[in-house]
Formats: sequence, C-alpha cells, structure tokens
Amino acid sequence: MNYVFSDKVSGLQASAIREILKFCAFPDVISFAAGNPAPEAFPTKVLAELSDSVMQTDPILALQYNITEGYTPLRDALKSWMGSRHCFEAGADDLIITSGAQQANELACKVLCNEGDTLICESPSFIGSLNAFRSYHVNLVGVEMEEDGIRLDLLEQALKDAKKAKLIYLIPNFQNPTGRTMSWEKRKAVYALAQKYNAVILEDNPYGDLRFAGEDIPAIKTLDTDGRVIYTGTFSKILAPGLRVGYVSAAEPIIQKIIVCKQVADVHTNIWAQVLCERFLATQNIEQHLAGLQKIYRHKCNLMLEGMEQHFSRKITWTKPEGGLFIWATLPQGSDMMGFCKRAVSEYKIAVVPGTAFSIRENDPSDSFRLNFSTPTDEQIVRGIEILGNMTRELLDK
Amino acid sequence: MNYVFSDKVSGLQASAIREILKFCAFPDVISFAAGNPAPEAFPTKVLAELSDSVMQTDPILALQYNITEGYTPLRDALKSWMGSRHCFEAGADDLIITSGAQQANELACKVLCNEGDTLICESPSFIGSLNAFRSYHVNLVGVEMEEDGIRLDLLEQALKDAKKAKLIYLIPNFQNPTGRTMSWEKRKAVYALAQKYNAVILEDNPYGDLRFAGEDIPAIKTLDTDGRVIYTGTFSKILAPGLRVGYVSAAEPIIQKIIVCKQVADVHTNIWAQVLCERFLATQNIEQHLAGLQKIYRHKCNLMLEGMEQHFSRKITWTKPEGGLFIWATLPQGSDMMGFCKRAVSEYKIAVVPGTAFSIRENDPSDSFRLNFSTPTDEQIVRGIEILGNMTRELLDK
Repeated sequence: MNYVFSDKVSGLQASAIREILKFCAFPDVISFAAGNPAPEAFPTKVLAELSDSVMQTDPILALQYNITEGYTPLRDALKSWMGSRHCFEAGADDLIITSGAQQANELACKVLCNEGDTLICESPSFIGSLNAFRSYHVNLVGVEMEEDGIRLDLLEQALKDAKKAKLIYLIPNFQNPTGRTMSWEKRKAVYALAQKYNAVILEDNPYGDLRFAGEDIPAIKTLDTDGRVIYTGTFSKILAPGLRVGYVSAAEPIIQKIIVCKQVADVHTNIWAQVLCERFLATQNIEQHLAGLQKIYRHKCNLMLEGMEQHFSRKITWTKPEGGLFIWATLPQGSDMMGFCKRAVSEYKIAVVPGTAFSIRENDPSDSFRLNFSTPTDEQIVRGIEILGNMTRELLDK
Repeated sequence: MNYVFSDKVSGLQASAIREILKFCAFPDVISFAAGNPAPEAFPTKVLAELSDSVMQTDPILALQYNITEGYTPLRDALKSWMGSRHCFEAGADDLIITSGAQQANELACKVLCNEGDTLICESPSFIGSLNAFRSYHVNLVGVEMEEDGIRLDLLEQALKDAKKAKLIYLIPNFQNPTGRTMSWEKRKAVYALAQKYNAVILEDNPYGDLRFAGEDIPAIKTLDTDGRVIYTGTFSKILAPGLRVGYVSAAEPIIQKIIVCKQVADVHTNIWAQVLCERFLATQNIEQHLAGLQKIYRHKCNLMLEGMEQHFSRKITWTKPEGGLFIWATLPQGSDMMGFCKRAVSEYKIAVVPGTAFSIRENDPSDSFRLNFSTPTDEQIVRGIEILGNMTRELLDK
C-alpha cells in the first residue's frame, strides 16, 4: 500500500550526515564524529558489582513493573543532590526519572507546544533535541550565539517577533555542538526575558558535571522564582549512556503532564538501571567519581587543543571549552564546509560532523564542524588531529 | 506562572481509577486490579546469571550508546523466531526493538495520525494504548465486541463513517480487558475490510504466548500481503516487564519513520536489557519456558474461574479466557458498577478495575469490571473471590 504519514513526521529525515557517519564504521577511519562518553570513564567494576547484588538479593524489584514517576529512592537521592548544588528547592519542584534526558526534552515540548507554536533555541543546537521538537511540528527559531552564550538582543527580538513563544531551549554548559558556556550575567538576563515575555525555559544540562576548567556557574533553574524553568539532567555522561536514565525537575503542574505523557510513552524507565544509579549514589563518593571523569576529559580536550594549535591552519578558529565533550571549529567564511568534511573522511580517513547537522533549519549554511574528544583514544587524537591539520594547511595555506 | 498546555495533552488526566488503585497499596486489600505478570513466573536465576555474565565479560556493550534500531543479534533472533511461527516473512518486513510494546503502539500512532484523524479500536480496550492515542489528539472510535472479537458489521460501518480511518487498533489474543480472542475467520474478515477501506492495522499481541487452553490462531500479520499490518510484541509478559523491551514489525517505510521517532523519544532502549533478552533466546529453550508460564497462568485462571462459579451471583456473567491475564465480569445491565467497585475495595477490601477505565470515550458507561489472576497468590485468589462472591450475592440476590 501507499503510506500517508502524519504531517509532523513526514518531513523528518534520517540524518543528512549519515553518509559521513557510515564511514566511521570503517576500521581505518579515526572518528571525531561521535558523542559517546569515554568507555574508560565507565565505572564498570562498581556497576557490575551493584548489578550482581541487586539481581541476587532483589531480582523482583529489578524485573517487575514499577511506577511511571521512577524509583522513589533514586528520585529522593537526586532531589537531595540537586538541592546540595543549589539547583532547585525540593519543596517547590518535583523531579521524575526519564529514559535519558532525550525523553525529558521531548516530553517538555509535547506537553507545552501545539503544532506551529514557536520554540526558540540557540543556533546551532543539539540535533537530537531539534529533531524531537520537529517531530511535534513546532516553529523552530534559532538565535545566534556569541562566546558567552545566546545573543540577548536577538533573543529579545525573537521573543517579540514570535508574539507568544512557548519555550526557550538552552544548553548553558559546554553546549552541544559549540562547547560554549553561558555566563552568569547572561543566565540572569535570559531568565528576566523569559519573565517579560512569559515563556518557559527548557534548561538541558547533560554536561554540567564534566567541567574540567574554570568555575561552576549556577543553573538558570537556581533563579526560578516563578516555576518557569524545566531542568533536565542525565546519568549518560557521568555513569553510562546505555542505562538510558535521565531526570527532569519542574513545577508540579508541568511534571504532572509529563508523567501522563511518559506513561503512554514507555510506562516507566528500565528499573534495573534506575536501581543501579541509586545504589551508585548511595554507596560511592560521587564528587570523587566526577573528579576522575573531569581528569580524563581535561586531558583529552587539552591533547586535542594542543594538536590543533600545532597543526591547524591559522585561518581556522575554534572554541576552547571548559568542559563537556566537544570543540567547534570554523573555516573561513564562505568555505565549502560540507566538501571539506566529505574529503576529510573519504581521503584522509578523519570523520568530523558538518555544522549543518546542528542548523535550526535544514539547509541553513554553516562554516563550522564539530570535533569530539571523548571517544577517540589519545593516540587517535594525536594522529588524527595531525592528519586533519595537514589537510587544513594544504587546503587553506597554499 | 499560569501554564498553558498543548491541546493534545490538556485533556489528558491521571487515570480516573486512581482512587481505587490507591487502596491497593493497603496491606489488607486483596488486589485483582493489577496487570502485572506473576513474579514467580520470572526466570530470575537465569536472568541473574546472564546479567552477571554480560557485566563481567562485555560491560561496555551493556553500558555504551547503541543504535536506535536495537541490538542487532536480538533483532535477528526475533525475526527468526517470528518467522518460525509464521508471523511474518523477514524479507518483506523489518523489525526493531522498542521500550516495551507501549512505545511501539504510541509511535505507530504518531507516525500515521494527524490530530483529528480517526483511529478505530475495540470497545473496551487497553487504557495505556487509548491514552497514547489520546495524547496525539486523534478521533477515537470504539467498535463493540462479541465473543469472538470485534463486530464486523459495526467495524465496516465505522470505517464507512470515518471516510478515511488511518488505523485499526486490535488486541486479537486474550484482549485487555476482556480476555476475548478474535477467531481466525474474523481475522481474515478484518484484514479484508482494512484492504477495502485502505486502513492500517495495528496488531498488539502482548499475551499471545500465554495461551493455556485451546489452539493457537495465527496473527493477522500472517495475512499481510500488502504491508498494512504493524505487529507489536513484548518480553514483558514472557520474561519480565521491568526490562521494558518490546518490538515492532512492519513494512520498511513505516519502520523507517518509527526509527526516527524512537530516536527522538529515547535514543535507544536500555541495552543491558536487550542483551539479556537475546542471550535468553540463545541459551534457553524458549518453548519449554513458555510451557512453564502457561502452566502457572492456567492454574491461576482456573482457580479464579472455579471460585467465581462457586461464589458469584448467577446474575453476573464473565468471560472464560484461553490465555492472558484477565477475566471480564459484567453486572446486570444498568447496575451501579462504579459504586460496586468502590464498595468492594472500601468495605470488602477487594480491588478490581471498573470497566469505565477501558471506555473509548471517558464517561462512557460500563456494567463490567476487570479481574486479574496473574499477580495475586493462590491463597489471595481463593479468599478474595469468595469475599467478592459473597458481596455479589448479598447485593444482587437478596
């Protein structure tokens, strides 16, 4: 039969960058295209022990249906952890477990946006969230960033133009794909604009615990006096992404709607994984664990930045992230960025993600590409960056 | 702030039967209101061993990101298992892993239905699916059932009236909540009607492997010559629901859209759970395992039916399921069913689910209630049914 898909999904495409990503499976390709946390950062031994313990002593807990809101001891542990970091007050907000932060971001959009409603986000932004929003047929409006985050003048203009923007989606810490961090001053200004135009802020913070340089900046959520910030977090980058355990904290009426939508989405999140996260928090020193991760990522990021400094053409610029997983490099204006990325992978066997993957509107041009330093080994970083650097010099300096 | 939710979710309510379900937490209440598989049916020892093995020997597989489509060896194993049961031909269809069948059913609706599109289902039907469909603001049309499934005359009328019905949602085996099974003749007739009116069938088969009496009836999917059947299944009832592993098999263009929507919903299903399911299929005798489950459920169902036969008022009728988890009991027409259920739990400490929970349109009346025999112990079944039976006789026979 001929299929007629719904309007909201008929425009959704499997990612246009698949052509490049499929090269990553070739054994001779060095991939800086992934977004995976470093496997050596997984506390595999501890998780194996915790898993064995729960499967031996409490298998029915780990295997039976549970409630949609999530495993209560994990919710309590997270509330207390968030509270200790001055992220939110447990009293005013509620917190539930989701199947990764991806689900939290998707459901925030589902409960708040009708088709055609305006959702404002940083430009560029995380492709997974953009596609989630697209799948509800919202009107995505991108706002350009500068070094310390979204441009306030353009954000206010976008809020004005939209008449009634429902959501402002932000990744304030080590943003994907740019690695940029929003300053404290800017966080306060963004919150004030959300108040002025009565919009809800969706604050996505998957990388906040991976700060390896500079000082922590409090979440926008800490400013939230009137319940307009939905805060999403995840264990994907601090424990392991295969667990698919994230969480969302927001005012109770919003959480109630998200619970109903989560119930129809997957009933609840895999309960074994939730118990593992809870027992990890209960039995391990989480701050010490995070310090270990930060050390790994600081080393890998510096290794990549040093290589870029040494080998890249001076005509290329790039961000110097203080955390997270990504560096954002920019070719001279008007370059054939897509041609560059295709040639890098097909001729030089180095994979990066073309910036257009993160464009707010498909086919919006980009001069940039994203480099990931968490997945490759040290040796791959050193060799790969030298090869890519030589390519940039050949291409741009001759 | 005052929240304005999207039209599609603003009508969604936490279930109206919560008032009754909250009684189930009281230790002195015997609950026939659950839908959980029997915990004694979980192969906990085998799953603990398989889990320990994968966490010891291949922890990165179990913890790292994986592809949205699901763990390839599990997909292959399921294709071959489905093939051996004449469910579908691996060549024409594709099969992916979902976070429970719940996700598969939700995404089928998302990819095919615009807001306002008509989706036809059996009346009554599974509340989880109904709420999933409601969350996309479709026009739900219920079609009455008879002993051997949906009424064909009314189904054709509904298809005619709808002009263009997108989906027909069916649970052909041991339907939730009625326990009824659609006959083979009816399956063929339903498929022919779907062809005639060019609708897609969403065949939900969570209980098909739990047949403990009568003869297997092939899935509607086996009739699918033109790719119009989306078939969903799950490990929830045959291994353990906390794993949240289901699957969906459909024509490749539909599966492609579902993959994109699953990617934005939760990236992929918990990978440890997928590996466990795969290793269970690879190392255990699944048919023997299913025979063990069938024995447990046959016993529990018979125990409940015998108790009802002995103690219930003759004015109550009920279904005699050949599998699954549920019995559907019906009070004399025009009874105060909700009052009956409330009194059962508050005075007699016996919880059942009022039939209105499964109504296609909220507040549609029902004279029935659902009894679950898989979760309570044998002792609870014997005692609980006697108490409930005495209540029915007091109420109806005096």
